Amino acid sequence: MARTAAALVIGNEILTGKVVERNVGPLACLLGAIGVRLRRVVVCPDEVEEIAGELRQLSAAHDLVFTSGGVGPTHDDVTYAAVALAFGRRIVRSEPLANLLRAHFGPATHEGHLRLADVPEGAELLVTPEMPWPTVQVHNVYVMPGVPELFRAKLHALRDRLAQGRPFASAVLYTTRDEFDIADALADVARRHAEVAIGSYPSFRRSDWRVKVTVDGGDPDAVERARAALVEALGPESIVVPRD
Amino acid sequence: MARTAAALVIGNEILTGKVVERNVGPLACLLGAIGVRLRRVVVCPDEVEEIAGELRQLSAAHDLVFTSGGVGPTHDDVTYAAVALAFGRRIVRSEPLANLLRAHFGPATHEGHLRLADVPEGAELLVTPEMPWPTVQVHNVYVMPGVPELFRAKLHALRDRLAQGRPFASAVLYTTRDEFDIADALADVARRHAEVAIGSYPSFRRSDWRVKVTVDGGDPDAVERARAALVEALGPESIVVPRD
Repeated sequence: MARTAAALVIGNEILTGKVVERNVGPLACLLGAIGVRLRRVVVCPDEVEEIAGELRQLSAAHDLVFTSGGVGPTHDDVTYAAVALAFGRRIVRSEPLANLLRAHFGPATHEGHLRLADVPEGAELLVTPEMPWPTVQVHNVYVMPGVPELFRAKLHALRDRLAQGRPFASAVLYTTRDEFDIADALADVARRHAEVAIGSYPSFRRSDWRVKVTVDGGDPDAVERARAALVEALGPESIVVPRD
Repeated sequence: MARTAAALVIGNEILTGKVVERNVGPLACLLGAIGVRLRRVVVCPDEVEEIAGELRQLSAAHDLVFTSGGVGPTHDDVTYAAVALAFGRRIVRSEPLANLLRAHFGPATHEGHLRLADVPEGAELLVTPEMPWPTVQVHNVYVMPGVPELFRAKLHALRDRLAQGRPFASAVLYTTRDEFDIADALADVARRHAEVAIGSYPSFRRSDWRVKVTVDGGDPDAVERARAALVEALGPESIVVPRD
């Protein structure tokens, strides 16, 4: 049974429309590539109780949880406090992190810098060669920065540690028939191939095809069987290869 | 007290990373402009029980809920079934919607088309001059299509109906000081101006400023007072106007 994951995106700036969220896409792609099913994404404000409440639910309901955002030194960076609250821990200053900070900022190091070393007690520090800064993990929650370049880099540094399963298999078909016409045929194939997920995505702009049909599943043979059944059900003459 | 809102984005294609989510940004901007606070975004799979479970929670906890996606004619379009399940209603065929469909598709109208008229019993059909197709509302839930152009058009058609409050006020400052140095000053101003939200967003790439500081609130005078307090606390000489 494939592992499941949830993402908790923390940030007022996304909820006010000031910033477009950019980490969920890369996370979804990486998780799919290592056979983990992303089942929920939640975006919540920079508020300790809100974050903690979501974390308790998501951590209990999924195998892996990734948070994004709220890990800087200012008053609105409250993710570690929320993780601590969610799991009933204190916040403590990590000596390894404090030493890294002192090495980085040198003689100019002050209390504002050292606040970045304040993490939930008992947190694991995941060290990888590519990243100068460890990723903090508490229970099944991986705490990631919100800045997209840093999020992406840390995610890829964690990939080998996270990867235990086979990637998901996918197939895609493009048909000239329209969604209304094919609905019954799709539903019939979906019922007969319940181990895969079949999705239907119409285009209103393309002249070469009308509906994109996708197949996803953990077993490549099952995906191929469903794909072949779809070709037959939709009619091979209606299946096209897109121009681009 | 400003009204609150939540968005429920429905779609396997977002959770598998195939499609980048594009409706939350425009929704967040419009809600801010009409003084409604978006407090949660949830992305969930195309599964009736999952959607229904989220809807019950979000509908109870927020004044307004907007769903995106899952309202086409194929087997993976299950949003109306989930709304019905969430609120304990049957699915019925709406005669007004069926008539619109018959008028649109003409003599070629068939059962696949008419499935688009199957909605939760008692749903309100919100008709606006700009949109040929009504928006379905059940309780405080507005059911919107996932296709971004349609979502945007329907949202704007609903704007006047939704707009009851004043827009939120915002201010922004750019400082040459870094996040670590200003953390205490920001926290102090935030405590003294608790009726606004102050956010801090560092840039690692700009040479003209290091941190963008934002102020948001319902009262423009309170936002201006907080902005002035920030200038004084950060030091006027550290405040710059960005080159672009």
